[in-house]
Amino acid sequence: MARVFDFRADVAAARPLVVCLTSPVAAPFTAQCLSALGAVPVMPGHIDDLPGAVARCDALLINLGTSDAARADLFQVAVDSANHAAKPWVLDPVGAGGGAWRTQLARDLVGCGPAIVKGNPAEVRALAGQAAQLKGVDSLDEVASALEAAQHLLAGEQGPREIVITGPQDACLDRKTSVAWSQGGHPWAPRVVTMGCALGAVCAASAAVYASEQAGLLAAQAFKEAASFAGLSAKGLGSFMTGFLDGLDGLGALRI
Amino acid sequence: MARVFDFRADVAAARPLVVCLTSPVAAPFTAQCLSALGAVPVMPGHIDDLPGAVARCDALLINLGTSDAARADLFQVAVDSANHAAKPWVLDPVGAGGGAWRTQLARDLVGCGPAIVKGNPAEVRALAGQAAQLKGVDSLDEVASALEAAQHLLAGEQGPREIVITGPQDACLDRKTSVAWSQGGHPWAPRVVTMGCALGAVCAASAAVYASEQAGLLAAQAFKEAASFAGLSAKGLGSFMTGFLDGLDGLGALRI
Amino acid sequence: MARVFDFRADVAAARPLVVCLTSPVAAPFTAQCLSALGAVPVMPGHIDDLPGAVARCDALLINLGTSDAARADLFQVAVDSANHAAKPWVLDPVGAGGGAWRTQLARDLVGCGPAIVKGNPAEVRALAGQAAQLKGVDSLDEVASALEAAQHLLAGEQGPREIVITGPQDACLDRKTSVAWSQGGHPWAPRVVTMGCALGAVCAASAAVYASEQAGLLAAQAFKEAASFAGLSAKGLGSFMTGFLDGLDGLGALRI
Repeated sequence: MARVFDFRADVAAARPLVVCLTSPVAAPFTAQCLSALGAVPVMPGHIDDLPGAVARCDALLINLGTSDAARADLFQVAVDSANHAAKPWVLDPVGAGGGAWRTQLARDLVGCGPAIVKGNPAEVRALAGQAAQLKGVDSLDEVASALEAAQHLLAGEQGPREIVITGPQDACLDRKTSVAWSQGGHPWAPRVVTMGCALGAVCAASAAVYASEQAGLLAAQAFKEAASFAGLSAKGLGSFMTGFLDGLDGLGALRI
Repeated sequence: MARVFDFRADVAAARPLVVCLTSPVAAPFTAQCLSALGAVPVMPGHIDDLPGAVARCDALLINLGTSDAARADLFQVAVDSANHAAKPWVLDPVGAGGGAWRTQLARDLVGCGPAIVKGNPAEVRALAGQAAQLKGVDSLDEVASALEAAQHLLAGEQGPREIVITGPQDACLDRKTSVAWSQGGHPWAPRVVTMGCALGAVCAASAAVYASEQAGLLAAQAFKEAASFAGLSAKGLGSFMTGFLDGLDGLGALRI
Repeated sequence: MARVFDFRADVAAARPLVVCLTSPVAAPFTAQCLSALGAVPVMPGHIDDLPGAVARCDALLINLGTSDAARADLFQVAVDSANHAAKPWVLDPVGAGGGAWRTQLARDLVGCGPAIVKGNPAEVRALAGQAAQLKGVDSLDEVASALEAAQHLLAGEQGPREIVITGPQDACLDRKTSVAWSQGGHPWAPRVVTMGCALGAVCAASAAVYASEQAGLLAAQAFKEAASFAGLSAKGLGSFMTGFLDGLDGLGALRI
């Protein structure tokens, strides 16, 4: 039986502070998506500021886009701070499977206890040590091909409690229930570069608001609804992006 | 008695070159806001280029968002270059009060002679050594609570000549007159992440154009007018941002 | 006699993977422009990932905006990788002529065999060692004043095979034919900050799709068409940007 959540109202009421370690490419759109839902993004740069920022936050996003060695140090400090303070954090393993260094970084982080992992099928497969096919940071693998990898990751002791595998329909898995799928959406959504990065950040906001293991599913469903809304009036990628932010801002109740 | 300024026309006629040291998150929207008014943004990255860039510019913005130690060195080089060449510069003390390192950096810079300081109430209080309440980089303090701190800063020998304290109505203070307040605006404006950062940059453009001590007030009023315009047709945060840039671009005369 | 190309369809069919080394200011808009045309942007950050990313890509963009010494090392690694794998790469010499360090960097790179150089008149003049007039990164020189410099660069042994000099009409030169000019456009296009940066990236996508020496001309003409489309309904810079992305997304056949 479907359950109904007023996701937009719940997030806006909680106003979760989400520390985002993400790429410069993704940062602006990610910040506006969080704000459209009533969450508060903060994007710290200085490593000395980071433990304090994480201690004060409600959730943390670790996005591996445009990462380098200095950034990997930031990630570890942030993750340790979040774990120490029992703050939920989300791993978005952007580009895992697409280069040895980044794949190893992602695999190291997935064992540090993220609340949610949000990735495309290739990234989720790479996290589990399976072969992955990417074009740039886009997956050439199908969602279904990553379900087993996700279940393997969920079985790990320090593994995530929920995994969102993105696709035309997102597969959302936790440790207990069978696979849940998001509904709706629009074919233009994956054409918005950094759309997936923004979803990772909203998963973090959701994890701060919902103690349940369906925080990722709610975030994924919110993105499908906003994309459907945008698709009603969009004339191309530009007006689709504008409409998507409007759609998040005016989001009604979600059924999952 | 209200005075009338054709701010948009004056800025476009002068085409001030504004060197912006700002965060990657804020940079794209900041650049488009400046350009919508007819100013010319430049965002240098290499420290060796910086003194030359500042020497050639008409105004400088120092924005502390996403700052780190290397960036702090850039700030000091830029400020020294601006002071040496008698170019006005604006300090936007993003996140002052939210971490010891950043607060100290902001307090060091405010004593270096900025033309304008633009900050939220918490940041202005932190600059003056008062306790500040922030959520992320947003202020939980009211505008009125920062007036005394602003007056204290204005009294300093190397302090700013004008301070803009942002809020539902912005309080603008200089060394001579009583507090002036911006009028109008729209409740969605502060929901646009980096809106305040863009205002700091436009304060710099304004300081390049107007010798008076009301450059900051004009910039603040321009933002309120553009937000009012955007609010007329916006359906959510996305179309509000689009309409805001349109509003700056089509700005009529301002009464202050 | 004009030839007709279905640029949008050709790019979308090829789905070229374009590695972009560009500034944080330009990255978001650049990424969306590529995606609107059906190309796939990737923006790597870690130098160890770079040779692999370039080896897997279809084209490379080197954009000098916000560059520093560490970034210059990235550029050289990327260019060497592209040349080794015979992948076309585009040089966008942002700010050449505006500072000694950046001018030298641009001149070093132009001798490394780019497929296309895309620059404003001042930048193209600076590449050829001529005096250049800039305001920020905008050119104060006219397109015609840079034709001779472009011809000089094209004559170099390791020089580019095509040069696009941007302006109200872009001049496109290759080693064989006379100068070709793009048609149409809209006066607001150059007011969109980083519009030129996005064109550089689309030149790279085009170079991956068309073996001919008119890849740059096609990209330039695509931007003029999208700007014309945007101008039909734009109310200001915000809706112009939205309409521009819509225009790229819905681009019809190009006549060059």
